[in-house]
Amino acid sequence: MTGTPWLDRRQMAAWVRFVAVLELLPGVLDSQLRRDSGVTHFDYFVMAVLSETPGRTLRMAELAGATNSTLSRLSHVVQRLEERGLVERFPGPGDRRVTNARLTEDGWAMMQAAAPGHVATVRRHVIDVLTPEQVDQLAAISDAMLAGIDPPGPMAAGYRRYDGPDGSGE
Amino acid sequence: MTGTPWLDRRQMAAWVRFVAVLELLPGVLDSQLRRDSGVTHFDYFVMAVLSETPGRTLRMAELAGATNSTLSRLSHVVQRLEERGLVERFPGPGDRRVTNARLTEDGWAMMQAAAPGHVATVRRHVIDVLTPEQVDQLAAISDAMLAGIDPPGPMAAGYRRYDGPDGSGE
Repeated sequence: MTGTPWLDRRQMAAWVRFVAVLELLPGVLDSQLRRDSGVTHFDYFVMAVLSETPGRTLRMAELAGATNSTLSRLSHVVQRLEERGLVERFPGPGDRRVTNARLTEDGWAMMQAAAPGHVATVRRHVIDVLTPEQVDQLAAISDAMLAGIDPPGPMAAGYRRYDGPDGSGE
Repeated sequence: MTGTPWLDRRQMAAWVRFVAVLELLPGVLDSQLRRDSGVTHFDYFVMAVLSETPGRTLRMAELAGATNSTLSRLSHVVQRLEERGLVERFPGPGDRRVTNARLTEDGWAMMQAAAPGHVATVRRHVIDVLTPEQVDQLAAISDAMLAGIDPPGPMAAGYRRYDGPDGSGE
């Protein structure tokens, strides 16, 4: 354990707590959506991205970028959603080599039904346990982390559409 | 999308960024450890917990609690680590119905070899991108989230051994 400076006491206090959040919170979000709506958090995330685009449609390659997923993983997820009638795939009108994914009316209805329970979970476990100052701090902290792991790309473009607390990023 | 108050603009700014961190950061930690040390981040987490106990040994049930894992998931992970000689299982000396897991000397040596690269990754993507104030803020924010999702138990006991920035939790 030599050669690289280990974390000091305050840094370790933050890291052990944050790594517990990384380990626990995704399971909480996932469990609620699976139980109440029969989809995983990643399924929901994919549909939420589609729901915010014009025509609720994106090229599969763009959708993979926007969800930071490989095309292979995304294809499996979309196939499952397609079998349930929540998403449909079709060739690009101008270029048939391109595959588009579109949120169906059933998918949109499902999201509207799922949203209140999901928002309640996000509020209960993240937003409402923080002070308004901490909510802004979390945005700035997340921006700083994302700047290092997420070079400007589709996912960055996605979340940067939402104004930060001070509009200047980190 | 009615009935539950949706997030306001500042809350949404924080949430979309934070959910991107939840989606991206575990993959970064996992990739570095897999590439450089041949273990997943969860493998490393399990071994790190063992390394900090007396005799580097815990009952499997306690280890499951401390890593917030089901016994079934943990058994698979420990079996894999055992096949590589990094962990060994043995019956409790006083109660043979109990199974203990112990970090082996090879496991300890492997952690010492893996630690510098792992710490460098944690520093590069989390600690060093934040100001000292943000490091303390992250500890307090994580504490607030964990208070709601992690009722006092082994995992809580684990991270609470590390003093928070003000010693009073959230």
